Amino acid sequence: MYQSTDSLAPQLLAGNRRALARTISLVEDGGPEARALLAALYPHTGRGQVVGITGAPGTGKSTLVNALTKTYRDQGRTVGIIAVDPTSPFSGGALLGDRVRMRDLAGDPGVFIRSMATRGSLGGLARATADVIAVLDAAGFDRILVETVGVGQAEVDIAGAAHTTIVVEAPGLGDEVQAIKAGVLEIADLFAVNKADREGADHTVMALQMMQGLAPARAGHHGAARSAAQHAEAGGQPDGAWLPPIIKTVAVRGEGVASLRDWIEIHAAHLVTTGQREERDFSRAAATLSHILRDELMAALLARLPAGHLEEVAAAVARHLADPYTAAEQMLAAFLEQATGGWSEPSRLSDRSDSLKPQNVDV
Amino acid sequence: MYQSTDSLAPQLLAGNRRALARTISLVEDGGPEARALLAALYPHTGRGQVVGITGAPGTGKSTLVNALTKTYRDQGRTVGIIAVDPTSPFSGGALLGDRVRMRDLAGDPGVFIRSMATRGSLGGLARATADVIAVLDAAGFDRILVETVGVGQAEVDIAGAAHTTIVVEAPGLGDEVQAIKAGVLEIADLFAVNKADREGADHTVMALQMMQGLAPARAGHHGAARSAAQHAEAGGQPDGAWLPPIIKTVAVRGEGVASLRDWIEIHAAHLVTTGQREERDFSRAAATLSHILRDELMAALLARLPAGHLEEVAAAVARHLADPYTAAEQMLAAFLEQATGGWSEPSRLSDRSDSLKPQNVDV
Repeated sequence: MYQSTDSLAPQLLAGNRRALARTISLVEDGGPEARALLAALYPHTGRGQVVGITGAPGTGKSTLVNALTKTYRDQGRTVGIIAVDPTSPFSGGALLGDRVRMRDLAGDPGVFIRSMATRGSLGGLARATADVIAVLDAAGFDRILVETVGVGQAEVDIAGAAHTTIVVEAPGLGDEVQAIKAGVLEIADLFAVNKADREGADHTVMALQMMQGLAPARAGHHGAARSAAQHAEAGGQPDGAWLPPIIKTVAVRGEGVASLRDWIEIHAAHLVTTGQREERDFSRAAATLSHILRDELMAALLARLPAGHLEEVAAAVARHLADPYTAAEQMLAAFLEQATGGWSEPSRLSDRSDSLKPQNVDV
Repeated sequence: MYQSTDSLAPQLLAGNRRALARTISLVEDGGPEARALLAALYPHTGRGQVVGITGAPGTGKSTLVNALTKTYRDQGRTVGIIAVDPTSPFSGGALLGDRVRMRDLAGDPGVFIRSMATRGSLGGLARATADVIAVLDAAGFDRILVETVGVGQAEVDIAGAAHTTIVVEAPGLGDEVQAIKAGVLEIADLFAVNKADREGADHTVMALQMMQGLAPARAGHHGAARSAAQHAEAGGQPDGAWLPPIIKTVAVRGEGVASLRDWIEIHAAHLVTTGQREERDFSRAAATLSHILRDELMAALLARLPAGHLEEVAAAVARHLADPYTAAEQMLAAFLEQATGGWSEPSRLSDRSDSLKPQNVDV
């Protein structure tokens, strides 16, 4: 049906779901075709609000994403969902989450769900996730929910692509589990204590408050029972700092989910008011540019090396006949001397970005 | 005392501990000085055996590393320990582990301990860890133990630097915790079920055996009670495959630790016999080369761009005035056209690696 990728972007922008699915697959695989597609779609991005949802298995994260999606649908908003499982191809967590969602959200044309598992490096996954977010954004989804498991560096990297990051906790997962999750303070804009009808929910809230009090980057903490309205009245902190509120939810019954949704909006408004939205957009753009440049530079180097040369050098390094630093320097010197032939594939220069071309390059 | 870094390498090789500590700090910080040092030390590496130890908090991993170190010391072997905590600067896990170790191992000149916390990207941490391993290897440590928390992509990347990777489990951490750890099957060469005197140890062993049975990459499983001697008699699997044995330990009392140490040796011998040691050394060298090349290419690009140009382009991308793919392509084209001036810093070519210089570079 889609013989040419040239027609994919217009079809996707016209709302064709099969074109959307095919585009995501191409973008996940990477390569020049994917880059051309992303370049065509990029002018249509920037309208979707990206919400990251992360938490350990057992916190009911998938159910919460499901419930949150329903409250957005009640408001008439469309939702794209990306379920990322960076830890393992074996855990099946993403698939299970999908099955739950499929049952509730199947057939709703305002919802699109995509699962992504780790392929190769973590950096690759973070980049692929950012690219799929851009595709869903271009396709016109009002809210894009990115669900990840755990709170390792994978989540920190992927959180960089979200406007608002929600960390989901639940009572009764044990103090040792809480300990490993201390890193969440770095990425959490909101905390959801899900399964809040269970014993120990208040203990979990208190543990989070204590962590907030102990963290060097945050001063003080606030009550868990504070409502969205109260927080809005308080007008935020004098220095524009944001203390991540802790919201109790019972996702299976939809309790607290509308409140969580409202908090997402409050946080989004806070980002705009304080100029942090602009900062985050800039950081994200710089990171994306840097990723692309690194990949493309390496590809250009490999294209100019004789076939098998990198393997030959690696074998010499492995046998301790060469040190990797000197070997890399020699490869680079040869590459830069030979690079005079210019870029090996034709540039796709767009008129509106011509002004970006560097005029005074220091050599 | 160390005004020049030129004298650091000889002093380190002569066994000077302060030179070792200073070298590690320099190497962690990166930069040209670090690369020169690593290039000087590289010919002296390749003798130390690198053992990765990973597991969730609460498994008694640090205590096990401590006990393992003592059994190596009993054999007269020297041990370098690197404690890596990629999850968070807040958890304090590495520091706690150090305190335990300091108490037991303080003042032993045959042991050197270093903690590393995440700085910047995960890729950066993996590379810094690999570099510190090389430094300890050059310093002559017989065994280098690398302790990491969790089993995310960080551990997968760091495991790439180890000859043998031990995954530590413990009873009673809950099935949900086990679920997230399914990814361990990809990296485990040995399983240690620590705290094996606790209730549920057999259940943990069985859960691991079940996971091994379910994993697509591994066929069948073997009994937990099988001894090292029995395994050695069995002569391994006919196809040279390695089924990670499951060893029960009680690290606080040193029980099972000598057995674990023997299994490390068996695994090391297995790697050599099957040619996998050579394969792993090659993969590691290729990954190191690739990391260095990517960093150096990006540094060369940035050095040739006008000051602030990357930020300017990122700002345009953030405001959706340019797409990052086209913008990156233009920057690369300009870089490659301008790169004719040659490599900007003098090459440090060593005589013995001159033969590695590419002779027939395809342009």
